Amino acid sequence: MYVILVYDIGEKRVGKMLKLCRQYLNWIQNSVFEGEITEVKLKELLNKAKVIMNIEDDSIIVFSSRQEKWLDKQVIGKEKNDLDNML
Amino acid sequence: MYVILVYDIGEKRVGKMLKLCRQYLNWIQNSVFEGEITEVKLKELLNKAKVIMNIEDDSIIVFSSRQEKWLDKQVIGKEKNDLDNML
Repeated sequence: MYVILVYDIGEKRVGKMLKLCRQYLNWIQNSVFEGEITEVKLKELLNKAKVIMNIEDDSIIVFSSRQEKWLDKQVIGKEKNDLDNML
Repeated sequence: MYVILVYDIGEKRVGKMLKLCRQYLNWIQNSVFEGEITEVKLKELLNKAKVIMNIEDDSIIVFSSRQEKWLDKQVIGKEKNDLDNML
């Protein structure tokens, strides 16, 4: 399935979370990721994320769609790929 | 149509952008909004957003779907609604 993952994570934990999410999905904006992923892999990602998160302060929202074609994407302003390549 | 809007905006401009987006969509996470909106209203929102943005540093990504039912949403951790009501 196709997912969009957005997180809001405390500064101390954000580096770890970024590294984790990039192992599973494409980084498209500061705290936004997208990509094709299986349900099993998504569960694995979220289980690892929960270990990093402070459940009372942090949050992750995952939107999922069975097919990417059901979603259109429009980007205004700076595309994040340059940053992505630097790290 | 149903949209998810995520922004990455410089600190100086983020207050204005938040205020603008909340006039059109529901605020669900720090820099994430969702909701039903017409194409005309979305265009209006994005035109106003471009005035606020610094196109070289800031970015907005809009995912849109003709039907909300094509997307599942899963929230892990803190739900942002309490904060939403405070402001």
